[in-house]
Amino acid sequence: MSSFSIGIDLGGTNLRAAAFDASGNLLARRVRSSDHHLGPEAVVEGIGSLVDQLLSELPQSSGPNSLLGVGVGVPGIIDMAKGEIAISPNLQTLNGFPIKAAIERRLRTPVVLENDANAAAIGEAWTGAGLGEQDLVLLTLGTGVGGGIIANGQVMHGKSGMAAELGHMKVVPNGNPCGCGANGCLEKHASATAVIAMARTLGIVDPDPEMLNQLATKGDASALMIWQTMGGALGVALANLINIFDFPLYILSGGVLPAWQHFAPAMMAEIERSSYVYRHSRPRIEAAKLGGDAGLYGAGWLGLNS
Amino acid sequence: MSSFSIGIDLGGTNLRAAAFDASGNLLARRVRSSDHHLGPEAVVEGIGSLVDQLLSELPQSSGPNSLLGVGVGVPGIIDMAKGEIAISPNLQTLNGFPIKAAIERRLRTPVVLENDANAAAIGEAWTGAGLGEQDLVLLTLGTGVGGGIIANGQVMHGKSGMAAELGHMKVVPNGNPCGCGANGCLEKHASATAVIAMARTLGIVDPDPEMLNQLATKGDASALMIWQTMGGALGVALANLINIFDFPLYILSGGVLPAWQHFAPAMMAEIERSSYVYRHSRPRIEAAKLGGDAGLYGAGWLGLNS
Repeated sequence: MSSFSIGIDLGGTNLRAAAFDASGNLLARRVRSSDHHLGPEAVVEGIGSLVDQLLSELPQSSGPNSLLGVGVGVPGIIDMAKGEIAISPNLQTLNGFPIKAAIERRLRTPVVLENDANAAAIGEAWTGAGLGEQDLVLLTLGTGVGGGIIANGQVMHGKSGMAAELGHMKVVPNGNPCGCGANGCLEKHASATAVIAMARTLGIVDPDPEMLNQLATKGDASALMIWQTMGGALGVALANLINIFDFPLYILSGGVLPAWQHFAPAMMAEIERSSYVYRHSRPRIEAAKLGGDAGLYGAGWLGLNS
Repeated sequence: MSSFSIGIDLGGTNLRAAAFDASGNLLARRVRSSDHHLGPEAVVEGIGSLVDQLLSELPQSSGPNSLLGVGVGVPGIIDMAKGEIAISPNLQTLNGFPIKAAIERRLRTPVVLENDANAAAIGEAWTGAGLGEQDLVLLTLGTGVGGGIIANGQVMHGKSGMAAELGHMKVVPNGNPCGCGANGCLEKHASATAVIAMARTLGIVDPDPEMLNQLATKGDASALMIWQTMGGALGVALANLINIFDFPLYILSGGVLPAWQHFAPAMMAEIERSSYVYRHSRPRIEAAKLGGDAGLYGAGWLGLNS
């Protein structure tokens, strides 16, 4: 086989790895616990053994020489210069640990670290909803709201690796308080967590996005109102992003996506009303295609281009 | 003399032109009426004769061969591919006219068109407050609010030349209605026009930004409240921009700038509270240095790099 890369998605719970060829085909994949409570060395060894397993599954002809590199997506802010995770609420044991160098030593191959939402944006641009686009914004609407911005084919990182903190755009001044210290952040009004909180407020017992999606499909008035409210807040953020970037494509992903039919009308109405750039330029606003694998694909791309 | 360029600022009232050397020194300048009511050919001839005058003032040794190019900043949306002004409320006679080709024919030199706020961002980056920065956002707070974004040393144009419509970021949902069709746009809450409208609402007769600045300096409670309110709205927009870009520098310019001491405290308080990227990354938020000449300098840079 020809050259390939390995993409790694290091999450708070699971460690996932997959091998990719240069055309974006997933050749093999493996998953295990991320075991970050055991400390940074254990995480590095977990990655090492998972990659060893993956390599053993690939066709014989692929020796170590054909592994171009390894990309690693992590939920946190990366210090690109140091090759460290600067801040990660979900992987605190790794904060300040030189993880890039440690994985490079263990695997003897170049490693690229990237924020997980940025990696997802890269993945979607490579072989998902953003195929062929040089400019796009990705929003992941899950427990929180993450963002990734690709401009001129490059991820925007910013001065401190903190660009695209899109979950903290203010969409409702004096809105719900956020852990970041502000009020009315997008992730307090349009994440899966926000939808669940709205449902609890309305007396719905043990809500989750899928249940609220089903309730809305059955015509439940409370569930419909929740999705409309969420769609309106998301529309404010997207209208702002469209007025700022005038990009051709905005991609949405995450756990709330199955309810698209319920939140999209309010989202699109707000965008149509609040973004004259949208009305003039008519960019695409679309669902992601790679689902939870987008970050894995993006990490694979980074490995190929390391 | 060595090679030089000419920058032109084509406004709704005045047509200004200046010659620049490659180091960003302004060599000579001229101004006349833009005469756009006389039609596109008259505008082109006005530019031609103004440039002829400028050339006649430069040292003898500078022949036509050393003019590298001409940049033209215009208040409107540029169709870069066609070399036309797509939409300009203040220069409607030029909409759809192939102005780039017409000026090139008249001057026999390459011409670059650019939106005026983008040109101002380029000018500040070249030789003003953004000297040495590759990434910055400029906001011009005048009659309206314009924006320019420079990323990786390049102006962001977007799909339709409409990137950086920062005056239409929503900062006050259900806020003042805007001509763009939305409510609560930044330019309805933080432009000179917005400040004047607030003052009229409070019963101040014939207000303008300079008078409101002086009133605030004397301790007038209404004037102080106006600037605080304006600063808070501007802070919401800047907090969002910082969370999105994590750039090292955000530059403010325009007619409200002399009142910096009155609006900046509320602006900075809102940014500190609403942008955790700001708290972590501590970018600079500074006044422009080139004042009303920023766009002229930016056009000069474009002429040098045409």
